[in-house]
Amino acid sequence: MKVYFDNAATTAMDDRVIEAMLPFMKSHFGNPSSVHSHGREVRNAIEKSRKKVAELLNATPAEIFFTSGGTEADNTALVCGVETHGITHAISSPIEHHAVLHTLEVLEKKGQIKLSLLDVNSKGEIDLGQLEELLKANPNSLVSLMHANNEIGNLNDLEKIGELAREYGAFFHSDTVQTMGHYAHDLKNLPVDAIVAGGHKFHGPKGSGFLYVRKDKKIHPFIHGGAQERNMRGGTENVIGIIGIAKALELAYEDMAGHKAQVEKVKKHFIEKLTAEIPGVEFNGLSADLDKSLYTVLNVSLPPSEANRGMLLFNLDLEGISASGGSACSSGATVGSHVLRALNHNPERDSVRFSFSRFNTLEDVDYTIGKLKELYTVEV
Amino acid sequence: MKVYFDNAATTAMDDRVIEAMLPFMKSHFGNPSSVHSHGREVRNAIEKSRKKVAELLNATPAEIFFTSGGTEADNTALVCGVETHGITHAISSPIEHHAVLHTLEVLEKKGQIKLSLLDVNSKGEIDLGQLEELLKANPNSLVSLMHANNEIGNLNDLEKIGELAREYGAFFHSDTVQTMGHYAHDLKNLPVDAIVAGGHKFHGPKGSGFLYVRKDKKIHPFIHGGAQERNMRGGTENVIGIIGIAKALELAYEDMAGHKAQVEKVKKHFIEKLTAEIPGVEFNGLSADLDKSLYTVLNVSLPPSEANRGMLLFNLDLEGISASGGSACSSGATVGSHVLRALNHNPERDSVRFSFSRFNTLEDVDYTIGKLKELYTVEV
Ligand SMILES: Cc1ncc(COP(=O)(O)O)c(C=O)c1O
Ligand SMILES: Cc1ncc(COP(=O)(O)O)c(C=O)c1O
Repeated sequence: MKVYFDNAATTAMDDRVIEAMLPFMKSHFGNPSSVHSHGREVRNAIEKSRKKVAELLNATPAEIFFTSGGTEADNTALVCGVETHGITHAISSPIEHHAVLHTLEVLEKKGQIKLSLLDVNSKGEIDLGQLEELLKANPNSLVSLMHANNEIGNLNDLEKIGELAREYGAFFHSDTVQTMGHYAHDLKNLPVDAIVAGGHKFHGPKGSGFLYVRKDKKIHPFIHGGAQERNMRGGTENVIGIIGIAKALELAYEDMAGHKAQVEKVKKHFIEKLTAEIPGVEFNGLSADLDKSLYTVLNVSLPPSEANRGMLLFNLDLEGISASGGSACSSGATVGSHVLRALNHNPERDSVRFSFSRFNTLEDVDYTIGKLKELYTVEV
Repeated sequence: MKVYFDNAATTAMDDRVIEAMLPFMKSHFGNPSSVHSHGREVRNAIEKSRKKVAELLNATPAEIFFTSGGTEADNTALVCGVETHGITHAISSPIEHHAVLHTLEVLEKKGQIKLSLLDVNSKGEIDLGQLEELLKANPNSLVSLMHANNEIGNLNDLEKIGELAREYGAFFHSDTVQTMGHYAHDLKNLPVDAIVAGGHKFHGPKGSGFLYVRKDKKIHPFIHGGAQERNMRGGTENVIGIIGIAKALELAYEDMAGHKAQVEKVKKHFIEKLTAEIPGVEFNGLSADLDKSLYTVLNVSLPPSEANRGMLLFNLDLEGISASGGSACSSGATVGSHVLRALNHNPERDSVRFSFSRFNTLEDVDYTIGKLKELYTVEV
């Protein structure tokens, strides 16, 4: 049996997404910047995709810019947000994705900003009081705090953070890569200035993404060249990527509640069964709290075990189970997780992130927990 | 009849490229950074693609970095070349693509470099003597001169430019977007430090590209995030784009001489027939000189005609012929060509770029010239 429990790293493409992309591989090949019929049909498809994304998010098409993925979108928001708005201070947290953390660190190293990282407690929670203090002390800051953490699943309250940011005149960027397509974003009402998406996290293609920037907080382009994306991103568009991410988002919104219920059932079953079968198991961050974490992510901390120490992912892989340690989308096996380190996680315990999608079943869970039980019983 | 003569803007995908990509849409969906089996099979495919590209270009895999296209690759080479190597002066020309020109202009505006643009004569030729003077006067310069111009097809002599750059210790980047897959690049012997590619110019997917950087001229990353591309480009890889561009390059090299002969026949026929049929026709840049220009590009300057003035592309489009005015990959219909302006082209004459691929036929030419003749005879 093969079980794929690494959906926070990437997801399988939905067949309907592939179907939507194929005509743009096989016949509609024009350059969307060309004014002739070959170009216009592709331009129309791109603009329809942009309109669709904007509608779903309750934004306007002029606020949506397609990118090569979540990482480029994060880089654009941060680098160009800072440059355009004359920002010299940024506030973030040590458990952000490297697409945010490394980008801010580089800006600090270049002397463009001073970077303040909020404290996190052992559950990965930040303190809004500390955020407010920093905002008060540093007018015209940039705040970059993710909607949900990709490793431990913790959800941040974007409304509250955004209200604070507004109150103190900050530019608020949120890395929404893990929630896009899984939670509804209503951008007319959510007080954020920039959010981002990576299509491959919700059954779209890898190498597709978009950036939303609120229209009264416009930023300069990050990639310079042609007039594509309303002068906001030079470069011939990844047409199939754009068609694919828009279709994937449309499918996600078509039955978001249904998908959520289905995936939540998988996660709940996983928690219950694992707790019953493996004594001493714990959960990292807030990932076992269904209300405070992504329904797609469960980060498990297993009791110390000589036989599995450092080998757990490998042992699971041998049984056909794909899961991940740290951020599977940014690190090899050997680099530890910067998120678990920030939470002072006990290094004696092996941690595994199991992450789910609507393609998973309860059988996947039973099979996996059966194997985990075998691995952890051998020793006892 | 439909004729596609805008291959310098973008090309139709080769069916064999699509075939190579499909398995990575349908079943091999893992994240290449994941260490489990789903990830490893995709990682292997990416590294095979890198190795293939490196082999074809006589480079090493560690010198090839996949990007979202030619534009991102140009931006990376220029922005990070300047930053990494402490460069404060750049030399380029007014007829470079906007991916180069706009990027250098932004660096100048930010005060990071002083930008010197070489003069071009009415045929779009640069003067290597002027280049040498500038190099002599400005040690540690960056030189960015394209291999072939996308509008007028002029080929630059990369060997000579590169030797000068080496002699004066400059970092030499060349925008090779229009020659990659059409001309062989032997990077062990060609004195360039960085070149770039966009897959969609040689029957690969749009939104795919790569950057070559010589190993002793390493540069910092442009997009920060995960450890992808050996820490040179954060972001989950556009897997299908990488598979596609490598396959397209492989097919291009499989029979480059054959493709060249075939396309050259189309171009030659076009020149001969057009000259015979339309009195007063001229050719922009060196595009009618088969030895000094891309075999894929012919830039035609038509005699002044009230009936077609500003409407020529539109009139051709009505007849099912797709061609382009300026840089079809970077401008709408209304923005004039910065290249033709730099050549002091007579604005009374309409110019059209016809650009060819191995999918074109002599019939395409005959049909097009028949229509051009009709358009230009009405008036006489
Ligand atoms: C000479 C040249 N450089 C750069 C580019 C940009 O490449 P891409 O379209 O892959 O971004 C193009 C075409 O678009 C080009 O013709
Ligand atoms: C929270 C978060 N931010 C950013 C990214 C990067 O997005 P992409 O993989 O599309 O570059 C990821 C995953 O890779 C992520 O989980």
